Amino acid sequence: MKNPVSDTIVALSTAPGVGAIAVIRLSGDDAINLVNSVFHGKNLLSQQSHTAHFGTIRDGSKILDEVLATVFIAPHSFTKENVVEVSCHGSPFIVQQLIKLFLRRGARLAKAGEFTQRAFLNGKFDLAQAEAVADLINADTEAAHKAAMNQMRGGFSEQIKQLRQELIHFASMIELELDFGEEDVEFADRSDLKNLVDKLLSVIKILANSFDLGNVIKNGVPTVIAGKPNAGKSTLLNALLNEEKAIVSDVAGTTRDFIEDEINLEGVVFRFIDTAGLRDTEDKVEAIGVERTREKMKQASLIIYMFDLKNDNIVEVNREINMLENLGIPFIKVGNKVDEVQAELYEAMKKDDTTLFISAVNKENLELLKEKLVETVNLDNFKTGDTVVTNIRHYDNLIQTQNALQAVMEGLNSDVTGDFLAMDIRQALHYLGEITGEITTDDLLANIFSKFCIGK
Amino acid sequence: MKNPVSDTIVALSTAPGVGAIAVIRLSGDDAINLVNSVFHGKNLLSQQSHTAHFGTIRDGSKILDEVLATVFIAPHSFTKENVVEVSCHGSPFIVQQLIKLFLRRGARLAKAGEFTQRAFLNGKFDLAQAEAVADLINADTEAAHKAAMNQMRGGFSEQIKQLRQELIHFASMIELELDFGEEDVEFADRSDLKNLVDKLLSVIKILANSFDLGNVIKNGVPTVIAGKPNAGKSTLLNALLNEEKAIVSDVAGTTRDFIEDEINLEGVVFRFIDTAGLRDTEDKVEAIGVERTREKMKQASLIIYMFDLKNDNIVEVNREINMLENLGIPFIKVGNKVDEVQAELYEAMKKDDTTLFISAVNKENLELLKEKLVETVNLDNFKTGDTVVTNIRHYDNLIQTQNALQAVMEGLNSDVTGDFLAMDIRQALHYLGEITGEITTDDLLANIFSKFCIGK
Repeated sequence: MKNPVSDTIVALSTAPGVGAIAVIRLSGDDAINLVNSVFHGKNLLSQQSHTAHFGTIRDGSKILDEVLATVFIAPHSFTKENVVEVSCHGSPFIVQQLIKLFLRRGARLAKAGEFTQRAFLNGKFDLAQAEAVADLINADTEAAHKAAMNQMRGGFSEQIKQLRQELIHFASMIELELDFGEEDVEFADRSDLKNLVDKLLSVIKILANSFDLGNVIKNGVPTVIAGKPNAGKSTLLNALLNEEKAIVSDVAGTTRDFIEDEINLEGVVFRFIDTAGLRDTEDKVEAIGVERTREKMKQASLIIYMFDLKNDNIVEVNREINMLENLGIPFIKVGNKVDEVQAELYEAMKKDDTTLFISAVNKENLELLKEKLVETVNLDNFKTGDTVVTNIRHYDNLIQTQNALQAVMEGLNSDVTGDFLAMDIRQALHYLGEITGEITTDDLLANIFSKFCIGK
Repeated sequence: MKNPVSDTIVALSTAPGVGAIAVIRLSGDDAINLVNSVFHGKNLLSQQSHTAHFGTIRDGSKILDEVLATVFIAPHSFTKENVVEVSCHGSPFIVQQLIKLFLRRGARLAKAGEFTQRAFLNGKFDLAQAEAVADLINADTEAAHKAAMNQMRGGFSEQIKQLRQELIHFASMIELELDFGEEDVEFADRSDLKNLVDKLLSVIKILANSFDLGNVIKNGVPTVIAGKPNAGKSTLLNALLNEEKAIVSDVAGTTRDFIEDEINLEGVVFRFIDTAGLRDTEDKVEAIGVERTREKMKQASLIIYMFDLKNDNIVEVNREINMLENLGIPFIKVGNKVDEVQAELYEAMKKDDTTLFISAVNKENLELLKEKLVETVNLDNFKTGDTVVTNIRHYDNLIQTQNALQAVMEGLNSDVTGDFLAMDIRQALHYLGEITGEITTDDLLANIFSKFCIGK
């Protein structure tokens, strides 16, 4: 699997912009030699791996910068090739001058993700792990970080490889039969085979199902606050968002941009989407109807249904709750204006212990609502350390594997011959193999790594 | 000069934002020990200086990231203290988690410039060199980079120290006289002293004068295009700016923001400032007058005077040129619309070989204009490697030194006693010493380093 082309690639590996330092990374057979040709202070070629050396980089007699060059000798590097990391002053001008010098000395600009791609091609890690590197860099919540870290350290790959191993075992039994095809032997007991496929299918189903959770972890929970205009929806949203604004960390250089419509609760991002929603345009529930509401709400994974304890009518509230139950999207019932309730509605709703009573304007019981939000999404499974599929490519491949295995199962049930079974099993093996990159194509790789940033 | 407080400081040292990697720097007696307490993979305490180690950083059992920790053992580091550079995945979330962990383990957030300040306090370099580090990071042209690099590598400090040495020699002769004060001895020959002060004054004058150039190098040349509205000023400006836009480099991550009103010619930035300018509002030169024009132009260091070869009147053009000559600001005469000239004006102006003839709309002879711009600013002195003062603090101190030395000279001329001379010499020594930090105060340091970025 050694990468046949090992020309020297170069890129800025730290974030662009002005900083105290910046790191330029070079990888390739000639990387150390190339840097050495412009480095003054020491002979980098005679240094041990993983050592850092102070010196100047010069273009002819002109000093471009004082740098620290750290040398990594193949295969003991991120890419398993010779690597030099040049730590220079964090000026875009200097970075540009240095990279241009390296280009003139024979390096070429790295493509997006090319360092990681080389690491993959040189067997440093598998494809799912490589993809996790990009996820890890982009992770901005506890949960997303945890899922990416688990995947990068091989947790997910391990499960896929185990599944694939069992399938190969299955395949080998079938192929053995094919070798003796004329003799109509059955080496593989059909009911044992069915049990195995059953087991594989159930594992794949769990993994595929985890994608819903994975998607929430990676992209947040699209959430709608539904209710009448005067129910206090905007007041609630602003109260939640303002607290988030206040929480955003102050460690210099790490402050995430505050995002207008997101809150992060215990590592889960709730992304509030704008929808005309329930009774939003005018006060005629009948005119809207379940179908139209469903249409409007279908982007949401979670609905906060907000009614007005002071002004709402118990019949209407019950009808709306009923409508939401029919929608099939999880929802939280929230009675607002608990500080100025009308007895009838309040007493009726109090009987239902799943309803929360808050005052958005006084920020009363907002903590209860937050707990409820987190509880409804329920990351508990994830918290126990199970593997979660967060990558849509992996999810697609799992679904394809599932289809192929279902075909195998049908084949077994209808007693088709071994060669038909073998065909579907090969399909399943193919799709699983693509997840970890045991089976791969140039197009697939190009597609995956082009989504990386330059310098990774 | 060892920094008495060496608690461990921590900061992100690379630019903020998402990158492939980010580098967190820690410095202080306990830095290696502190990182080691959360680093898994190796014992960092038993490693040699300048070595990089792969491992994980864990918060309890939770893996925060896979990192490369490079260890620098005092005094062989940037700060001369124990330093660890932790190279992690370039995610703001991860950087935040790691820094928070280090803070919990006893580090504190570094103040702006605190790493460089410690390097200065520990005698790694002098104050002028420390200031050059910040200039170097912010340098975005060849010339600014060169001036900062020269200063960082001690060129300027060397000159100041030499001056100071000669002054100390001078002072010692005077002080010797004071010791024998009652006896009215003159150890120092007064004419020798005058020669020395004269020499010092001329060196300081050259340095102080270089600040004009230094300011241009650091902040660009404020330039005005003057001329009638229809002379083609906007066409010219757009032609120059659009070429600049096209030139801006495409090395990923190093692209400087294109600045609306700047062009960079051979490393000199010309910053076009907006002014109503010559004849800009209406076509009545008389009404404006030299004084008012001077007022309007006084922000400019360079004027491009543009007249219209097709429509302008030779008498008026000559009057305006005359007016500009009286202003005392360098100006370049540019006749526009060379493709549709009227004979009289063109023939008259052709006799003056300092006038350029261009066509802004056809981009004709723009290269000549650019050469002329660069030539007018004249960085030639700088190009020969002379020291250029770019820092206004240094300039102020040089002027103060100059004043003190002039007082010495006056004292010598009017035969004042040695103790008066000594007082002024001590003043001069003080101001020179502040440039390199041989004399310093906490306020001065706080003021200088607060302008640095965090992490440097």
